[in-house]
Amino acid sequence: MVPPPTATTPAPTIAPLRVVDRDGHTQFVDRHVGADREAQKFMLDTLGFDDLGALADAAVPAAIRQDVGLDLPAGLSETEVLERLRLLAAKNVRMVQMIGQGYYGTVTPGVIQRNVLESPAWYTAYTPYQPEISQGRLEALLNFQTVVSDLTALPVANASLLDEASAVAEAVLLMRRSNKAVPDGVIVLDAELLPQSIAVVQGRADALGLDVVVADLDAGLPHRDITGLVLQQPGTSGRVRDQSGVIADAHARGAMVTVAADLLALTLITPPGEQGADIAVGSAQRLGVPLFYGGPHAAYMAVRQGLERALPGRLVGVSRDALGATAYRLALQTREQHIRRERATSNICTAQALLAIVAGFYAVYHGPEGLRRIAQHGHDAARTLAVALTGHGLELTADAFFDTLTVRVPARAHVVVAAAEAAGVNLRLVDGDHVGISCDETTTPPHLAAVVAAFTDRDPGAELAAPGERAFALPAGLVRDSEYLTHPVFHQYRSETQMLRYLRRLADRDLALDRTMIPLGSCTMKLNATTEMQAITWPELASIHPLAPDHQTVGWRRLIADLESWLATITGYDRVSIQPNAGSQGELAGLLAIRGYHRSRGEHRRTVCLIPASAHGTNAASAVLAGMRVVVVATAADGTIDQAHLAAKLTEHADELAAIMITYPSTHGVYDTDVREVCDAVHAAGGQVYVDGANLNALVGLAQPGRFGGDVSHLNLHKTFCIPHGGGGPGVGPVAVRAHLAPFLPGDPAGTGAWSDGGAPVAAARFGSAGVLPISWAYISLMGGDGLTTATASALLAANYLARRLDPYFPVLYTGESGLVAHECILDLRPLTAATGITAEDVAKRLIDFGFHAPTLAFPVPGTLMVEPTESEDLAELDRFIDAMIAVRAEIDQVAAGAFPAEDSPLRHAPHPATVVTATQWGRPYPREQAAFPLPALRRDKYFPPVARIDGAHGDRHLVCACPPVTDFA
Amino acid sequence: MVPPPTATTPAPTIAPLRVVDRDGHTQFVDRHVGADREAQKFMLDTLGFDDLGALADAAVPAAIRQDVGLDLPAGLSETEVLERLRLLAAKNVRMVQMIGQGYYGTVTPGVIQRNVLESPAWYTAYTPYQPEISQGRLEALLNFQTVVSDLTALPVANASLLDEASAVAEAVLLMRRSNKAVPDGVIVLDAELLPQSIAVVQGRADALGLDVVVADLDAGLPHRDITGLVLQQPGTSGRVRDQSGVIADAHARGAMVTVAADLLALTLITPPGEQGADIAVGSAQRLGVPLFYGGPHAAYMAVRQGLERALPGRLVGVSRDALGATAYRLALQTREQHIRRERATSNICTAQALLAIVAGFYAVYHGPEGLRRIAQHGHDAARTLAVALTGHGLELTADAFFDTLTVRVPARAHVVVAAAEAAGVNLRLVDGDHVGISCDETTTPPHLAAVVAAFTDRDPGAELAAPGERAFALPAGLVRDSEYLTHPVFHQYRSETQMLRYLRRLADRDLALDRTMIPLGSCTMKLNATTEMQAITWPELASIHPLAPDHQTVGWRRLIADLESWLATITGYDRVSIQPNAGSQGELAGLLAIRGYHRSRGEHRRTVCLIPASAHGTNAASAVLAGMRVVVVATAADGTIDQAHLAAKLTEHADELAAIMITYPSTHGVYDTDVREVCDAVHAAGGQVYVDGANLNALVGLAQPGRFGGDVSHLNLHKTFCIPHGGGGPGVGPVAVRAHLAPFLPGDPAGTGAWSDGGAPVAAARFGSAGVLPISWAYISLMGGDGLTTATASALLAANYLARRLDPYFPVLYTGESGLVAHECILDLRPLTAATGITAEDVAKRLIDFGFHAPTLAFPVPGTLMVEPTESEDLAELDRFIDAMIAVRAEIDQVAAGAFPAEDSPLRHAPHPATVVTATQWGRPYPREQAAFPLPALRRDKYFPPVARIDGAHGDRHLVCACPPVTDFA
Repeated sequence: MVPPPTATTPAPTIAPLRVVDRDGHTQFVDRHVGADREAQKFMLDTLGFDDLGALADAAVPAAIRQDVGLDLPAGLSETEVLERLRLLAAKNVRMVQMIGQGYYGTVTPGVIQRNVLESPAWYTAYTPYQPEISQGRLEALLNFQTVVSDLTALPVANASLLDEASAVAEAVLLMRRSNKAVPDGVIVLDAELLPQSIAVVQGRADALGLDVVVADLDAGLPHRDITGLVLQQPGTSGRVRDQSGVIADAHARGAMVTVAADLLALTLITPPGEQGADIAVGSAQRLGVPLFYGGPHAAYMAVRQGLERALPGRLVGVSRDALGATAYRLALQTREQHIRRERATSNICTAQALLAIVAGFYAVYHGPEGLRRIAQHGHDAARTLAVALTGHGLELTADAFFDTLTVRVPARAHVVVAAAEAAGVNLRLVDGDHVGISCDETTTPPHLAAVVAAFTDRDPGAELAAPGERAFALPAGLVRDSEYLTHPVFHQYRSETQMLRYLRRLADRDLALDRTMIPLGSCTMKLNATTEMQAITWPELASIHPLAPDHQTVGWRRLIADLESWLATITGYDRVSIQPNAGSQGELAGLLAIRGYHRSRGEHRRTVCLIPASAHGTNAASAVLAGMRVVVVATAADGTIDQAHLAAKLTEHADELAAIMITYPSTHGVYDTDVREVCDAVHAAGGQVYVDGANLNALVGLAQPGRFGGDVSHLNLHKTFCIPHGGGGPGVGPVAVRAHLAPFLPGDPAGTGAWSDGGAPVAAARFGSAGVLPISWAYISLMGGDGLTTATASALLAANYLARRLDPYFPVLYTGESGLVAHECILDLRPLTAATGITAEDVAKRLIDFGFHAPTLAFPVPGTLMVEPTESEDLAELDRFIDAMIAVRAEIDQVAAGAFPAEDSPLRHAPHPATVVTATQWGRPYPREQAAFPLPALRRDKYFPPVARIDGAHGDRHLVCACPPVTDFA
Repeated sequence: MVPPPTATTPAPTIAPLRVVDRDGHTQFVDRHVGADREAQKFMLDTLGFDDLGALADAAVPAAIRQDVGLDLPAGLSETEVLERLRLLAAKNVRMVQMIGQGYYGTVTPGVIQRNVLESPAWYTAYTPYQPEISQGRLEALLNFQTVVSDLTALPVANASLLDEASAVAEAVLLMRRSNKAVPDGVIVLDAELLPQSIAVVQGRADALGLDVVVADLDAGLPHRDITGLVLQQPGTSGRVRDQSGVIADAHARGAMVTVAADLLALTLITPPGEQGADIAVGSAQRLGVPLFYGGPHAAYMAVRQGLERALPGRLVGVSRDALGATAYRLALQTREQHIRRERATSNICTAQALLAIVAGFYAVYHGPEGLRRIAQHGHDAARTLAVALTGHGLELTADAFFDTLTVRVPARAHVVVAAAEAAGVNLRLVDGDHVGISCDETTTPPHLAAVVAAFTDRDPGAELAAPGERAFALPAGLVRDSEYLTHPVFHQYRSETQMLRYLRRLADRDLALDRTMIPLGSCTMKLNATTEMQAITWPELASIHPLAPDHQTVGWRRLIADLESWLATITGYDRVSIQPNAGSQGELAGLLAIRGYHRSRGEHRRTVCLIPASAHGTNAASAVLAGMRVVVVATAADGTIDQAHLAAKLTEHADELAAIMITYPSTHGVYDTDVREVCDAVHAAGGQVYVDGANLNALVGLAQPGRFGGDVSHLNLHKTFCIPHGGGGPGVGPVAVRAHLAPFLPGDPAGTGAWSDGGAPVAAARFGSAGVLPISWAYISLMGGDGLTTATASALLAANYLARRLDPYFPVLYTGESGLVAHECILDLRPLTAATGITAEDVAKRLIDFGFHAPTLAFPVPGTLMVEPTESEDLAELDRFIDAMIAVRAEIDQVAAGAFPAEDSPLRHAPHPATVVTATQWGRPYPREQAAFPLPALRRDKYFPPVARIDGAHGDRHLVCACPPVTDFA
């Protein structure tokens, strides 16, 4: 597959590094890369290199170095990029979007748009693994969980999933593994399920060999053993049904039941928990999150008591800190896929934190009475239409509905939809005889008039009066009478001033990139430039429905095509799909493509996936979910793949080998020199090579996985290509493949299950999280090929500078043959821990007192810290971090010297909130100043964490995953 | 003038208050008004009223209550308002703006736009009169001053003025009062001065009786006694001249010299200070501030040593805090107009802080090398054009230029300008024979090609090569060789990440409305809603040149016409001009209208302006600058105007009476009942009534100054109509008049001095600070008449609730006959000060430890605090403030009881930075917790000021007004 290097060429010639001429600070690359020329010169001198090219030559093995620069358009100015984005946006058509299907018009409150979606304090934050500096976003996520739990009437909700379709798939998997009564029965999907949910579940089930049937439940449950049943409320047609009967039937037969439900509808309709459901899933999009041409939107999942430990995704819980104060943190983290590896039951990694936060704040801002009013508005709008249309003799497919109608118009559906479009309204073309209409928060009387006119060919004028209370009312038994959102947080912030201050207060509790380097190994926390971010909330992009006809979305599709082609150029692959809306989904899509490829060749036995021991746990989890068996390959002492072990495994599984998954540079932050050999060996054994693109930031412009041996990679646009982490999502995980795998890329989820254009879809929307793609589009446009290469080399420089400076204090665990690291380095704390008892966690927490977010803790090697500075950090910030680490080392030495014991040291007591250091009682063996201001530079602009070190285990023992009573903070 | 109430009607009937029905939180008014219905009910109960109407009936004298609701369009939703703004914006035409004339294309760096211009932390901040909570914006303003000082090569620069034209006028006044050598000579204006500067100076000079001549200086200085000379560099034609000779001549003849200079040009050209100028003024617009259809833009003024104490406007200086640390604050405040009153030499009050901050950050972001590159880019573009156009045989009016050319095209100017417009480029139509072209940061080769094509009728294609180094080079003697922006702040923040963190760090040092109530009496710090703010940075509004032809600005002019008409409806006047770009300018415009009116009737003697003793000092300053004599009317013991004294003054000045200036409600925060009588008496004496609209927030919907006796008012859109204070500007001060004064409203400054459409212009741009008018337009559109009325009544409620609750602890000094206050109240500290030594300032500083911005200190009554909560503060925030004030009172009682002496009390030591309360050494007679967390609610989200109490006098004795060396912070 990969043409082997010809024997006569020992190694490709390395072209001189095409970096940007950085004179005069005229280009965006100079704003993106932190260190200026002078600083880079200093850092290069420290390392003994003349220029970035020499460093790259030494660090990157010649065997994989690409020999030409990236063939991308030259970098543009920020002004030019914004103008081009404006031109693209203008090619989309803003419409009144009444298509529905899981995507509805909504109004993002201005105060939330500006101060959350458009605020670096929120969008540049990392996943709250360090809870002490994440109390603000943890509270925001807890608000979201409380909204979901209250509205679904199920006690435990997670902190969001990727989209509704994959949430349904996760629910199917959850039922499958939790149902001990009927473990191997069929999964029944309600025919009223959203088409994209059916498509995604079928793809996932196919990989795992699960039996799934789609059934019209009006005919009763199928006469088979049923493991799980998935219902939709309201159905995709808009119909609202009393589901308590079918749920009771299913339970009686040993099945578990999931209801995919519209959160807004649940303000009016009896919730799934009260109807007996075990699980509820759905989308929180319409709680203030723009349509975004399909995503990112937060999906949700809530479960009944007893299933909480089986819940996939992240879960925020309440615990306490070292002082006994109430504090939040991620709960039950041992459930997570990166820990469970091949025993994982879900590969969900990134969530949709930023969008879940927005949805939670939307509920805080509107409160229960506001949400109910908004729901009633859409319901009344639909009832108004129902009265008007039936008054014209038209027939509805259901008399009980929330805000969506399906209207029977025999042979006229195309005409009606076209007439509406001409009036500026998008309706849903169900089939030639049926048209769907979804009302929502944004629906106005003129919209309704336009819809009626499209159906009846006449302006309804004044006849569109509000219908009587009883016309098309919800069935009495389905009217919700239970309370929700009773917590004070949903009642306190009703004015914009109150809301603004609440948002600021929460933001101030947290550390994000707008205040500090976040030197997280493997996470590539680089600049998310304003120019990259600006377009995503423009209405010409954000208000487009994912199912709008193609002629209305020319701008969007052009932008996406550009981006896919640029990513292919960068990675050296032939085709890219941006559908996967997280790295984990990209992995899954890539592995499914490999699976599809083998099966297309009749090689059904090829299901073994080799994974090095040092791999990120998600690799293994994804392989399992792609229906593969994981076989672990050992790591040698130097951190590379153990070649002998690999050879043995290749031999052992010769006939079953599907693939190897490797990360390059390795998760140890090193450019292994043997990568081509590994790829060749796997190819020779009939396997495919999956190169995890998590560390692509060390490759762009220097080496291409699609050229040095990879058949498929996923990328992380939220790492390498500047989509911000948003406190734990959105992510985008495009999958890039060589040509032979292209037919197996994810298909359109709006299809019928026979994916004409590829393999199984992995996301609800054709283009996944389209809404944030302008960020990466802008980044690549701004940087150009040489700019991107400069960034990569600058990232190498920063990492090697840090490694060189810190090595005397904290030994760098692995380096390449050159003695260099790639874009990150692992600092080994284990000898110091053994000598003093001070752990890597103590160091991580102590860094908070210096105003830093901790590096990656205990991955990939327990007892270590992995540091990735990225190219965006400047020399002063690197030195500030180095100074902090040296000061920390001095404190460890104080422990070693007996100045204070580990358990009463500033390291173990870290972090120190203001209340601690200002207390009259002190009594610690180190001064207050050392606690609060361990370096003098902190004196003027000090960040105090709101809580002391958090006791995670306490929270796991006493699981609380909704907003705690206010008295807890007294 | 005002029809007197007919004798048979004792008082107008009060219509029931038309407030908004606040059910269900469906309308913007519920987001704007802080307290919800339940909270308002509680507050009304506390005061003993049934509803807002009853409160308003009791508080507002029946004699002035308006008897119908406001005739404004009904309030719209936020979505509707944004859509209407989009439609208006779409009616403007975006062009390449090469008109120049003081307004140039520039790129606002995204990181500054999003994190300053669009960040509530910056735009909701108040003027930094409380320096301890303003260190961030003071540093930002100091950056601006340093930019100005360095670029002009003059040692002391102020923190901005309103616009270039009024800055020139201020320079003229400064020369006039500072030139002791030739005190009564003529003021000579360079004919190359911008036309709008000439127009504004002529208007101001006319009022003061100054002799001003415009002279072509190529013919030498006029043969007259010259007090002051104003030059422009580059000239309005674009010409660059060596001005050292004429400056030396002027000095030799005893004249002082001002140079109006383009800051960007000064990166390349010998600066005014090195040419010998005494004063430099100009605009900082092109340092990153959008065109904004004319404003707001920060003007600047810098002066030579010896003139600093005569400098108008605000001046940031360096001082130290109680611990000896370097700290910033406003310097030489005793110069300011509100203190000097009728002895004031300038009436400047608001500056353009937010825009000066943006300009300062632009320089920080680009640094000296970046500014020079940007300047060189424009210069090279102009040189390219010069070569190309002269190559086609066209003639330039000058061979030495920076970035602006004037091209001679006999009789073809209209054709050329039209051809350029057709190509999307606006050029300057100088006259029928001359066309002006200004290049700038945004100029691209296609723009240049379009310009050449417009002049020559053919596409220049490749011939537009960069000119040789010597072609149209600046004269060698005018090439700048001195350094500038050498301070580290202009070298440290070159990457976006660095800049972002710098902006956040500074913002975090400050308190603004996004964190706390700012209960400033007379300043109306209400919500600046996001929806109101959003449009101002849309390019369809922000990129329009003020001199663009009217057919390109249909949207802007419609928006402005709407706003003027709505403001007239609200105030009960007949005509409104939004030209004045600050309240002080509105006052001046109003007084000039009165002056014009009297003079038009031949009553030239009417120059006496009566001003109550309690008036804001700016009233008197404006009167002086309008050429009036101020006569003070005494205040009675109850705070009202002393009627007997007024009668005596009316009699004494019967023939000279021009006007009375009153504030209503009075500056004491009370609705005086005698206002109609006062107006009638003044009218009877032939005077006009000026009602200062500073307190209009207590009147909207309840009473109309244009109906109860006013002939003219200015309004403060940055108070009543939601334009944010921006840390001390922008402001907008529309002037509203009855019909007889309408002919004397400010004319178009682009006119020739014979203002065809009105009186003397007071601002450089026809529509003043147009750029921020969408904020007030949106506010009124969102609220509607009933919403505005609800807001007013709610403001009364909040103020009276506060007054009632605080009176037992701090007596409320004045109330109306009803026992109620209006929208603010004065808390009398004097008895407590006499008893304990604790001053109002101590209380103000101690409130910082509670996280509050202090109320207004010592105005209008020394020894008091004036509190104005506004309608936007909710009950919880009001109670938080009340709790803080009660806790402060308890500490004062501790002093009284001898628990600690005043000088060692938490009040006197306030505020307490974190470094103080965490120091090992404490030794104060109150616990650390009391210092840092005087109320338990502060423990989780505590604001620590970065400095302790600042010693202002020290800084005034050792005046430093540029960035201090970094070593000062060691």
